[in-house]
Amino acid sequence: MKVIVLSRVLKEKHIEKIKKTAVEAGAVLCFVEDEKDIPEGFSDAEVLYGFGTEYARTNPALKWLCVPSAGVDYLMGESAFANKECLLTNSSGAYGVTIAEHIITVSLMMMRKLTLTYEESLRGEWGRPKPQKSLKDCRITVLGTGDIGTCFAKRAKAFEPETIVGVNRSGSCPDPVYDRTFPIGYLNTILPETDLLVMSLPDTVETKGILSRERMALLPKDAYFVNVGRGSAIDEEALTELLEKDELGGAALDVFRTEPLPSDSPLWKTKNLLITPHVAGNLTLDYTLDTNVEMFCEDLLNYAKGLPLKNLVDRTKGY
Amino acid sequence: MKVIVLSRVLKEKHIEKIKKTAVEAGAVLCFVEDEKDIPEGFSDAEVLYGFGTEYARTNPALKWLCVPSAGVDYLMGESAFANKECLLTNSSGAYGVTIAEHIITVSLMMMRKLTLTYEESLRGEWGRPKPQKSLKDCRITVLGTGDIGTCFAKRAKAFEPETIVGVNRSGSCPDPVYDRTFPIGYLNTILPETDLLVMSLPDTVETKGILSRERMALLPKDAYFVNVGRGSAIDEEALTELLEKDELGGAALDVFRTEPLPSDSPLWKTKNLLITPHVAGNLTLDYTLDTNVEMFCEDLLNYAKGLPLKNLVDRTKGY
Repeated sequence: MKVIVLSRVLKEKHIEKIKKTAVEAGAVLCFVEDEKDIPEGFSDAEVLYGFGTEYARTNPALKWLCVPSAGVDYLMGESAFANKECLLTNSSGAYGVTIAEHIITVSLMMMRKLTLTYEESLRGEWGRPKPQKSLKDCRITVLGTGDIGTCFAKRAKAFEPETIVGVNRSGSCPDPVYDRTFPIGYLNTILPETDLLVMSLPDTVETKGILSRERMALLPKDAYFVNVGRGSAIDEEALTELLEKDELGGAALDVFRTEPLPSDSPLWKTKNLLITPHVAGNLTLDYTLDTNVEMFCEDLLNYAKGLPLKNLVDRTKGY
Repeated sequence: MKVIVLSRVLKEKHIEKIKKTAVEAGAVLCFVEDEKDIPEGFSDAEVLYGFGTEYARTNPALKWLCVPSAGVDYLMGESAFANKECLLTNSSGAYGVTIAEHIITVSLMMMRKLTLTYEESLRGEWGRPKPQKSLKDCRITVLGTGDIGTCFAKRAKAFEPETIVGVNRSGSCPDPVYDRTFPIGYLNTILPETDLLVMSLPDTVETKGILSRERMALLPKDAYFVNVGRGSAIDEEALTELLEKDELGGAALDVFRTEPLPSDSPLWKTKNLLITPHVAGNLTLDYTLDTNVEMFCEDLLNYAKGLPLKNLVDRTKGY
């Protein structure tokens, strides 16, 4: 079994771990940093770990693609795989910790006006105290209760919020950290009672535009909103308008309809909008990368033994 | 019993609460926004709630001063009270929630490089991912395990740190959230094993300069440091030097030897130093102000009944 490992960020310990697992799995490895560097002898490799989108699109020999991302929307098109039966696993589960920390940080930066305070400090100004909001007694709604949403909810719980409400497709409760869980159909009744809305949804047919102009307007005027899922889930123009009219307390976006966000986008200059360049869940945190590699190695053994893959994506659902 | 309430920030609900309590306590109230507005008829008031430092210094009739701050260092001098027997209560306990949120926010802003990312976003730049640290598996040391330190520790615990070590005068453990607690004498052995040092100490003879140049140098080169207690506890010059030489990951200071921090202070321009203008625990958060008023009202009833005051400061210790 030939396995391509495509990565620029692996450290020595990760390479050792993969090599050790490959021996056990009976795999022959090829490490490359770029798809164009895949040697001729591996053009029939059946496994690829990494962002091998071009290889998957063109190579019918591929039987399993393991991507280091949680979102797999970029692999959902008709032509994404030359082999229509190719298995796809993602790394959902590796990003919960780092993205949860991101959500807590940007939420509190906004609620405590630390963005403004930081701007003052850059100018060498000793600023005045500003009105603040707190996670204490806050009504939090988590839209998308997967690993990321639930890792966030577990951390947020320690801040003594009034409620943490989960919203997902089925309405079933994935973890006791949620005070209540509702199916998406209830969203319009939950939004008016939300002080902090956190969106961590995959990009699927059902989630596109889910936070429409009409729904966004249901949030209280002093509510805060964080999106770490996919930019396609929200109406960016409507958000800009609400923020400029002070009809929302603030918003933090890590994902956008177009990435990188174009330099002429009006979002850059929108009032009370905190922009981060899709960094909530990148691989620069050791823990995330460690977990990512461990997840691949576990499934490499499963694959070699003919067992079901643990992190398999349902390609009809998109997550 | 005449009671002066000195405040610019009380809301209608707080005034109502105080009035209702005063009836029960048999107190006559006078609300003023500034000490110079205290009417002649209240120059013999025996209770003052607020920052009544001038009244305390000059008026021997005062029997109880209740200040809305946690720190009381500004009332420790020989001449602070005209009546040497005057009781002093503080509002330690009202600030834990808001200061704990501040500590979490600035720690993660530094560890996740969100200060740099925010600066890039202000320039309309889509920045590159940066190396990050996490509270997950972090070794946290809390120097000063009172209400503030412990409120922080309880929130930090949800982020799954490796350890939370408390350090205080006695070494006794105030809360099970700490994995271990040591007396201050052990500090030099704990600092080299600290990834995040949080200082929430009162300003006393013992805490002045406690984080000396020598001790600061014991922290690992990639450690982070947050001070929300009093500026007198640290050697600011040594901190600047360590940060400029990259011998510390970053520091967040909310308190300074001189406040407001002078505009020509080198701290403003120090690398990886996050400056906030003593706002971690101000009264702009509703919850803090609510708790503050409740603490005064509770002790007003205690005072009227001749019972011990709950929030009494030991004026010989300074907290």
